[in-house]
Amino acid sequence: MKEKPLSSLCTPALVVDVDKVKRNALRMIERCQKLGVQLRPHMKTHKTLECADIMTGGSRRCIVVSTLAEACFYADHGFDDILYAYSLPLDKVERCADLSERLDLFQILLDHPHALDELKKRPLRDGRLWHVWLKLDCGNGRAGVLHSQPEAISLAQAIVGTKGVELTGVYVHCGNSYNCRGVEQIQAVAQETTDLTLQFMEKLKASGITCKSSIGSTPSCSHPVKDMGKLSEVHPGNYGFYDVQQSVIGSCTLEEVAVKVLTRVIGHCPHRNQLLIDCGWCGLSQDGAGKLPTGYAVIEGHPDLKLLSMTQEHGRVEPISGPLDYSKFPLGFLLTLIPYHSCATAVMHPVYHVHSEGRLLGKWIPTRGW
Amino acid sequence: MKEKPLSSLCTPALVVDVDKVKRNALRMIERCQKLGVQLRPHMKTHKTLECADIMTGGSRRCIVVSTLAEACFYADHGFDDILYAYSLPLDKVERCADLSERLDLFQILLDHPHALDELKKRPLRDGRLWHVWLKLDCGNGRAGVLHSQPEAISLAQAIVGTKGVELTGVYVHCGNSYNCRGVEQIQAVAQETTDLTLQFMEKLKASGITCKSSIGSTPSCSHPVKDMGKLSEVHPGNYGFYDVQQSVIGSCTLEEVAVKVLTRVIGHCPHRNQLLIDCGWCGLSQDGAGKLPTGYAVIEGHPDLKLLSMTQEHGRVEPISGPLDYSKFPLGFLLTLIPYHSCATAVMHPVYHVHSEGRLLGKWIPTRGW
Repeated sequence: MKEKPLSSLCTPALVVDVDKVKRNALRMIERCQKLGVQLRPHMKTHKTLECADIMTGGSRRCIVVSTLAEACFYADHGFDDILYAYSLPLDKVERCADLSERLDLFQILLDHPHALDELKKRPLRDGRLWHVWLKLDCGNGRAGVLHSQPEAISLAQAIVGTKGVELTGVYVHCGNSYNCRGVEQIQAVAQETTDLTLQFMEKLKASGITCKSSIGSTPSCSHPVKDMGKLSEVHPGNYGFYDVQQSVIGSCTLEEVAVKVLTRVIGHCPHRNQLLIDCGWCGLSQDGAGKLPTGYAVIEGHPDLKLLSMTQEHGRVEPISGPLDYSKFPLGFLLTLIPYHSCATAVMHPVYHVHSEGRLLGKWIPTRGW
Repeated sequence: MKEKPLSSLCTPALVVDVDKVKRNALRMIERCQKLGVQLRPHMKTHKTLECADIMTGGSRRCIVVSTLAEACFYADHGFDDILYAYSLPLDKVERCADLSERLDLFQILLDHPHALDELKKRPLRDGRLWHVWLKLDCGNGRAGVLHSQPEAISLAQAIVGTKGVELTGVYVHCGNSYNCRGVEQIQAVAQETTDLTLQFMEKLKASGITCKSSIGSTPSCSHPVKDMGKLSEVHPGNYGFYDVQQSVIGSCTLEEVAVKVLTRVIGHCPHRNQLLIDCGWCGLSQDGAGKLPTGYAVIEGHPDLKLLSMTQEHGRVEPISGPLDYSKFPLGFLLTLIPYHSCATAVMHPVYHVHSEGRLLGKWIPTRGW
C-alpha cells in the first residue's frame, strides 16, 4: 500500500492529505498558545484516533465530542479529559455515569433543570463529581439557555447548589459565524460572542460563582479576536479538514482543505451535454444543497465544471457554459471533488485513505453511531 | 434484548418493522407472479442479508445491487445470480472478473463501447462468459444509451459480436416515475417505459438479437401496467421499506412505511417557540431538502409539528402554527420520524433495530462502502 498513488484507489474514495491536516492543526495550536487560551479540539468532523492525535499534539487529552459513541471510542483508546458537548440526553445518563466513573475527567453539558434533576438521581461512586458545563446561547439559536434570560443564572446557581455536581464551565457555540462572509464579519461574531460570554461570567461572579468559559466554531477560532484570550478554552473542530463552506465563509483558503473525494467518469451523455461520475450523495452527502456556482462541490482543476445533481451513486456533471469536450474526460478519468461540508462528507465514508503528496500512507477508520 | 420495547433504545435509532417489510415484500412477489414477470429485487435501500432473504423469499437468488461492495457482501454470504446494475466502472473490472469466475451467475451492465473494450482485455477463466446487460435510457435522463439513438442498437450488436461476452438483457430504470403524483401518472410512465423497451426489443429482434428485458422503479412496480408482463424482469428496491417520498408519489400509504427514526426531545427553546431533538442530518440525511409541509420528515402522530432544520446532531422542531405546549414534550419525550427517503436515511445508520409490534427482535447490520 505504502508506495501506491491515489489513482490506485477504487472510487468514490475519501482521501485525506495528512500534511495539510498537520499544518491546519499546528496553526490552530500556535494561534491558541499566542492568544493564551486552552484549545479543546472537537472530534465530530473526523471521529478518528489518528486525527485526534494530530489535533491534541499527541497528548490524547482535552477533547470535545458530539456523540456518546465518540466519547466511548476515545475513552477506550486512552483519551481522557473528554467533554461530551451535547445537552444531556436523558436516555444516556447511565452511560455518562459509567464514563464519569471510569475516566479521570469526563465532562457533560446541560441547559435545562430537568437534566440536573436526573443527575441528582444518579450520584457517582467513590465521591466523584459530575463535571457539568452550562450551555449558553449567545445568539446561535440552537441549544442552550439564552444568555439574557434570568433562567441562565438561576440554572448556574442550581448546578452549584447541587450535591455531587460541579459547575465546570460555561459553554457557548458561535455557529452563527457560519453566516459570515470574510474576516471582518467573522471577527464581529467572535467579538460579540466573547463579549456576551464574558458579561455572563461577570454576572456569575457577582453572584459568587466562578468557573471556566469556552466558546468556539471554526470560523471564529481561525480568525480570533484578542479578547478570546480572556476565555478559558476554545473548541473548534472542522479546521483539521476545512472544506469549501469554510473557504466561502473566509476561515481558510481552498488550498488548505485537507479532505477530498476521488471520483471517476463512468458515463458520457452527449444528448444532455453531461458526464456521469461514480460519486452520488452516498459518497458526498447532500450538504450545501447544490447552491455553489459549481453545484454540490468544487471540482479541483476544473472551475468550468458543475456538479449539477446527484442520486445515490451517480453524479451529473456539466460545463458551466458551452459544449463538453468528451475527449478530455474519457471513461475512467479521475476527478477530485472538494466537499462543501467535510463533516457531512466524512460521515458517508467507512474508511479514509490517507496520503502525503499523493502517495498512500494508510487508512483511518472513523467511529460511527451514537 | 428480545423482550424489550422500542423505548429502551438510545436515540437516534433506525427501527424496522419486520412485519411491514414482510407484507411489502410479499405483496411485490405476488404482484409479479400475477403479472408473469421475474422479480429481481434491488438491495441498495437496506444492504442487509436479512432483508434480502425476505425480498427473495429465502432463495438468495436473483438480486440487483448498486455497489460492488454489496455484490461482494452478498456473494460472500451464499447469494448468487447477482446483477451489478451500474455502468461498468473501469477501475473495478478485475473485481468484477473475480466475481464472474466465483459465482454461478454474476452479471454486469454497460452503456459505452469503451467498457466493452475493457472486457475484451480481460477474458474470463474456464471459458466463462461475461454476462452483460445493455443499459438503455428510456427517458429517465441518468445512465444509459438513449433508446432512440442508433448507438444503442450498434452497442448491442457489438456486445453480441464480442467473443467471451454474452448480451444477457436490456436494463432500463424508470426513475422518472419519481416525478409522478398518483397512480395515473405512475402508470403513464410505466406504460411509456415498457412500450419504449419493448419497441427496442423488437428492433433488436429485427437485427437477429434476442435477450432479456428489465425495467424497474418502486413506483412503477407498485402500480404495474399489464404490458410489464411482456418483459422478462422487473427490479424495484425501495418497496421493502418505502418512505414519505413514495407515499407522496402514490406508491404506498404512510402506514406501509416500515422504517422510522426514533428520536428524543433534548431541549426546550421557548424564546424561539421550538423544541430540539437528538436527530440531525447524521441520523436522517438531508434528503427532501425540508420541502415537505412538515419539513424534513413526518413526525408520527404529530401532524401539527414540523422538522424545520437540522445540523449534524440536532433537529429544530416547531409547531406549524400557534405556540408550542412544552408540557406535552418533556425532556426525553420520544418522537418517531418517518423519513422522506429511506435509502438516504438507512445509509446513515451502522445498525438497524428490528421489531415486531414494538418489541425488539434483534439487529440488522448493513454493508457500506464501494
